[in-house]
Amino acid sequence: MTDSAPQPATRFAAATYADRLARAARLTADAGLDALVVGTGPDLQYLTGSRAHSFERLTAIVIPASGAPATVVVPRLELASLRDSAIAELGLQVLDWVDGVDPHALVADVISGAANGGRAAGGAAPAVAVDPALPALHVVPLADRTGAPARLATPVLRELRMIKDAEEVDALRRAGAAIDRVHARMGEWLKAGRTERQAADDIAAAIVEEGHTAPEFIIVGSGPHGADPHHEVSDRVLAEGDMVVIDIGGPVEPGYNSDSTRTYSIGEPDPETARRYALLEAAQEAARRHARPGVTAESVDAAARDALARHGLADAFVHRTGHGIGLSVHEEPYIVAGNDEPLRPGMAFSIEPGIYFPGEWGARIEDIVVVTDGGCEPLNTRPRALGILPAG
Amino acid sequence: MTDSAPQPATRFAAATYADRLARAARLTADAGLDALVVGTGPDLQYLTGSRAHSFERLTAIVIPASGAPATVVVPRLELASLRDSAIAELGLQVLDWVDGVDPHALVADVISGAANGGRAAGGAAPAVAVDPALPALHVVPLADRTGAPARLATPVLRELRMIKDAEEVDALRRAGAAIDRVHARMGEWLKAGRTERQAADDIAAAIVEEGHTAPEFIIVGSGPHGADPHHEVSDRVLAEGDMVVIDIGGPVEPGYNSDSTRTYSIGEPDPETARRYALLEAAQEAARRHARPGVTAESVDAAARDALARHGLADAFVHRTGHGIGLSVHEEPYIVAGNDEPLRPGMAFSIEPGIYFPGEWGARIEDIVVVTDGGCEPLNTRPRALGILPAG
Repeated sequence: MTDSAPQPATRFAAATYADRLARAARLTADAGLDALVVGTGPDLQYLTGSRAHSFERLTAIVIPASGAPATVVVPRLELASLRDSAIAELGLQVLDWVDGVDPHALVADVISGAANGGRAAGGAAPAVAVDPALPALHVVPLADRTGAPARLATPVLRELRMIKDAEEVDALRRAGAAIDRVHARMGEWLKAGRTERQAADDIAAAIVEEGHTAPEFIIVGSGPHGADPHHEVSDRVLAEGDMVVIDIGGPVEPGYNSDSTRTYSIGEPDPETARRYALLEAAQEAARRHARPGVTAESVDAAARDALARHGLADAFVHRTGHGIGLSVHEEPYIVAGNDEPLRPGMAFSIEPGIYFPGEWGARIEDIVVVTDGGCEPLNTRPRALGILPAG
Repeated sequence: MTDSAPQPATRFAAATYADRLARAARLTADAGLDALVVGTGPDLQYLTGSRAHSFERLTAIVIPASGAPATVVVPRLELASLRDSAIAELGLQVLDWVDGVDPHALVADVISGAANGGRAAGGAAPAVAVDPALPALHVVPLADRTGAPARLATPVLRELRMIKDAEEVDALRRAGAAIDRVHARMGEWLKAGRTERQAADDIAAAIVEEGHTAPEFIIVGSGPHGADPHHEVSDRVLAEGDMVVIDIGGPVEPGYNSDSTRTYSIGEPDPETARRYALLEAAQEAARRHARPGVTAESVDAAARDALARHGLADAFVHRTGHGIGLSVHEEPYIVAGNDEPLRPGMAFSIEPGIYFPGEWGARIEDIVVVTDGGCEPLNTRPRALGILPAG
């Protein structure tokens, strides 16, 4: 925190959050709930612009379904953590509490006060939903104080966060362009004789240079390491003939993330590797071409999977095709078998099929796309062909 | 992750975890529970040495009260995240699951299998407790699949983690000595004309140089910023006459944290500041002298608070006196009004009273102490008097 005024770019204007809170209250009512309780994390950031952190001391916003103003409960000690949010500008009620007070009882009182104007006036326990990241430390005592088991606020929050508005798409587009600029420089860093870690250090610096606030994750999966989709980075020395999976990203202000994977070859790949890679490229394109309003999330997964399966590579593709992205790197909608959510304009997610040959190599191609009225717009536009880098 | 074998220092020997798991099962049975479910985080690290991270995909260990072997549920994609833990060496059952499978149903099946050999054979819903950090995303569906609301595993886990064994005290002692070496160098960095952020950057580098794996937190609260106990760092320029609160720490292998605060004055303090600081020093000493087996946590808080109150400084001390420390920077026992837990040998916590004068200055003195048979041993031994640094 600095003496200067908050940088406007770290959050949207207060009106954006007023609108989101009003929609959250309406969706809460539609879901038959009396109130939402949202602790610190990306959901609170979405609703108020607050980046407050907390763990054992409860900070939360209570949003009544009635449309009555939301209340923020916060440890007195951490009041300053709300300073850069829109909470003051929105005139929300802030209840600060000190060590020794039971904050869960405080939240239950707020809910019961709000509910007494609404559905639960008869004395029934209010129907309360909590954000998915709220730790059990708060979920369990809150259920105890309100007298009813907590439900998940996911249906309300996913509905809000899953559909990006124009400001959010703009932020994601800036993030995509920034990470594309990093991939464009990959030849500077991936060279035979250097280690994965040396390359990752250079990539980390470039992620910030190109406009991110921090490198959020960096995978440099060379040779056999590329066959582990969750490998991060090691001291393995890159060698001629290596396939190298580079999966990188981070946030740009006001907090929206990039996430893009390209696969590189140090020197020319052997023909069988090139053949399999071309099948992956076609599978990724098939999924991108399939994604449009009205088709289900799982059908996008199937489009990539079927394209690989037709060429005997079903077993090589060991993970889902993608995940939503926004304030969180992983959020709704998940592009996975079993998710029959129909795509709608404004949804933003990764399309990232991969093929993995344990002990040998792996490859993955990942773009973030935003669903448009007639299809989807990729926010990553670097060439998807295998990036062949000079061996020397 | 690297090609080399795991560094032995990143966890204890497998026998340590075998013992902890056995004690966890016994305490679970003693608490009248059928099973514990512990997700990723410091509790899993405590029980297995695993530093796996996860969020939307469930990774958890299920510990039956019966003493039957524990089971680890993990996404197939993240199996490698368990590699450096003691899980393989302990021969625990590992159930890996793929996207599309319901991992909460899997956990419920494991629990019901274990419970059918035990107390819940009659078909009643099993009594399951979850770790306090488990997100609602997992808590709520797990309650749904097991048919009973989740309880908090805190009573079991706090009992285990709150009492440090000799290996843990050794790690905390190394952490304390490392952060003391950083405080010893503070005169290199706190100088009039430099910013808080410049000092913090130097401190961050020194925290690593002196043996921590990373700087976990750095507070440089100069002048009026020192009056906000949760101020972090800013571009404020240090000036002669500033009081500066430096609260710093981080983990040393295998994951145990340091946390120590000292307050410095750039140039000589004015007499009234010096007088109030001396009262704080006496209050911190009173709490340290009071802490011993058998006295309650809240009485240690009262010892510091009463010492300040006797001199009219009750209102200046706005937070609790301390928190436990170990794998987490903040854990049980909390040294706070309302906590009547009697201290026992092996408990490790901070003693950190502070005084805050909004808009003017603040001061805090913090040591980590370990309760011994007859009192407590401070793990931070830097002078507690105000650190007067040359103004130039």
